[in-house]
Amino acid sequence: MIKNTELMQLLELVRNKKPLIHHITNYVTVNDCANITLAIGASPIMADAIEEAGDIAAISSALVLNIGTLNPRTIESMIEAGKSANKNGVPVVFDPVGAGASKLRNDATTRILNEIKISALRGNISEIRYISGLASNTKGVDASVDDMSDDANTIASDLSLKLRCVVAITGAVDTISDGSHTVSVRNGHPMMSSITGTGCMCSSLVGSFCGAAPESIFNGVIAAIICMGIAGEIAFEKAGLVGNGSFHMALLDAISKIDANTISGRAKVDEA
Amino acid sequence: MIKNTELMQLLELVRNKKPLIHHITNYVTVNDCANITLAIGASPIMADAIEEAGDIAAISSALVLNIGTLNPRTIESMIEAGKSANKNGVPVVFDPVGAGASKLRNDATTRILNEIKISALRGNISEIRYISGLASNTKGVDASVDDMSDDANTIASDLSLKLRCVVAITGAVDTISDGSHTVSVRNGHPMMSSITGTGCMCSSLVGSFCGAAPESIFNGVIAAIICMGIAGEIAFEKAGLVGNGSFHMALLDAISKIDANTISGRAKVDEA
Amino acid sequence: MIKNTELMQLLELVRNKKPLIHHITNYVTVNDCANITLAIGASPIMADAIEEAGDIAAISSALVLNIGTLNPRTIESMIEAGKSANKNGVPVVFDPVGAGASKLRNDATTRILNEIKISALRGNISEIRYISGLASNTKGVDASVDDMSDDANTIASDLSLKLRCVVAITGAVDTISDGSHTVSVRNGHPMMSSITGTGCMCSSLVGSFCGAAPESIFNGVIAAIICMGIAGEIAFEKAGLVGNGSFHMALLDAISKIDANTISGRAKVDEA
Repeated sequence: MIKNTELMQLLELVRNKKPLIHHITNYVTVNDCANITLAIGASPIMADAIEEAGDIAAISSALVLNIGTLNPRTIESMIEAGKSANKNGVPVVFDPVGAGASKLRNDATTRILNEIKISALRGNISEIRYISGLASNTKGVDASVDDMSDDANTIASDLSLKLRCVVAITGAVDTISDGSHTVSVRNGHPMMSSITGTGCMCSSLVGSFCGAAPESIFNGVIAAIICMGIAGEIAFEKAGLVGNGSFHMALLDAISKIDANTISGRAKVDEA
Repeated sequence: MIKNTELMQLLELVRNKKPLIHHITNYVTVNDCANITLAIGASPIMADAIEEAGDIAAISSALVLNIGTLNPRTIESMIEAGKSANKNGVPVVFDPVGAGASKLRNDATTRILNEIKISALRGNISEIRYISGLASNTKGVDASVDDMSDDANTIASDLSLKLRCVVAITGAVDTISDGSHTVSVRNGHPMMSSITGTGCMCSSLVGSFCGAAPESIFNGVIAAIICMGIAGEIAFEKAGLVGNGSFHMALLDAISKIDANTISGRAKVDEA
Repeated sequence: MIKNTELMQLLELVRNKKPLIHHITNYVTVNDCANITLAIGASPIMADAIEEAGDIAAISSALVLNIGTLNPRTIESMIEAGKSANKNGVPVVFDPVGAGASKLRNDATTRILNEIKISALRGNISEIRYISGLASNTKGVDASVDDMSDDANTIASDLSLKLRCVVAITGAVDTISDGSHTVSVRNGHPMMSSITGTGCMCSSLVGSFCGAAPESIFNGVIAAIICMGIAGEIAFEKAGLVGNGSFHMALLDAISKIDANTISGRAKVDEA
């Protein structure tokens, strides 16, 4: 299982390489995605026109696809960018926001998974259940309480084997699997679900780590999710009682100040 | 007239039901709209593709239409979502941002009002004057000083009868009418107009309350506008002298921490 | 060269006239652009549909074109708005985000410069090198370190003469030229590049000053860039050690509180 020294090395890689992370993402949380990508040490570019999606993906270190506010134009751009990323050996991270909530989201999810080789898939339990073909209660873009069960390990592991990519289910406990190994991350704070964008930001961190260390996707996803969780804890300690606006700001503060000591002192990761 | 106990019950309803609020809104303030919807206790979803607008509206508890950055694609999606909301008994809130400022906004406003049954209309005095067929000095998206007169009560009441919906004119004093009754809310702070999005966020709160209590639209609109005003007062007290960025954050803090005591201690609402 | 009294008068003009600044800009930093426009004392409107772009530009005091998340639809709107601005004597500010990074951005940049008379062009050194026909290392939307050389004065001056507009290259030192005179601004802080949007926000300030004083474009661009730099310094002093989220908020605080004393005490501008 991942060691603290490996986590710290991955963070150092992000900060030294400053990888360019191409996002085709939603307009709700895009500012937070760009800012968290910068805060962890990477460099964001948001480009969703099909006329440049392939070009930008080709010069990037990772591609993050997020269907939060998808439409037919941007779905085509995602496919174009994804194919270019695949051709150029650029890892692709997929965040299937709201999969299960509408036919458009379901069809786009199917197309992306069929036509693009994904390196890492990150979603909440409702979205991942939907993709796994299991009964899902996706209503909107937040996880349904009814879907939170104790079988996340099996679901992540099975889906990882089926899709041949790392699968991460984030929630009260985060589950990450590469099919052979499954780990649980117990960092984070419930207040993270009281602001928009913590899932999207987590996917941006996944993109940043995968872009910096494409040979270590599994560890990169774990590192990203641990960083996000630790930032949530620190943000709550600093600003949770003040309110949602301060918590939001403190989350970006925490990512920008995260370092090896913080990680080694706080990371809570176990073999599942 | 609405009593403090009713205000408090409405807030409790939002927090207990956590209604899903579908927004088709502008990309300038969409993050604030999502965050304030979460802060009051509801759940936002932003979905503007016509391919899913009707599906999402049908599973939502309220629909908020905001034409701040409209275009022909999203206007069609608004119509589609609105019709689906009407068919499914989902209340529709309309925020006619910049009505009067361009033919596109004027035509979209007319179409929405003609083709969709609106439950609540919230705008500034320039926008509402334009919709009422009165001389209006809309220039841009902010209210024109020339339009601020003392006839807001009559304008709101007349328009409410004409459109058969609750009409709210927000400004230094807020006026809300259902045609039979008109109330004035004297909460808020002038600094609210120094940041973008306080109008849009107010409409998201209106959506949240209407989604939680569709049988009490008039009281829901009043409650939403009181909460927004109180949050503006608290934000000014906490951060007004620091500057606009801090005020912005403090506004979201205040909504997330608002409770029965705050409301009963601060609400300033009178029969007009 | 610009005197402190002129800087102070320009700021007063913005605050007294409250000019309407039409933006066709990217969805990543659009909220920051709107908020900084309000914070300096102007009034923003974001309108990117071709059906209203010309109408809105015609009633505005300045137009800001920013290609950060361009697509074919919005490129046409930029051309339409730009032509309307030109016809109506409204100054146009162009921010060529990521010029050099893709054919789409390059072609759009060429079209805008060929078809629209620009009053002020603001970019980072990689973007301006690209537009000047010089070797450029644009990778993404951030300046490439390889492009930072000591020839910024010559590049800005030459390009200003060629395009007949004020050219500003912002970076560690900012260079502004109108072809006859070139000045260097040494305000700012390196942390400004650790959050997204400081370039875009600077262009919004340029639009605000040019809209308030269209007869003084050169001085307006200098004033805007000085204000942005001073805000970066103050934001770092107040919140730099706390982290990126707090720094971001403090930047908007600082612009909203900037005044004549702050400017005269801190402005660092020299004939280049």
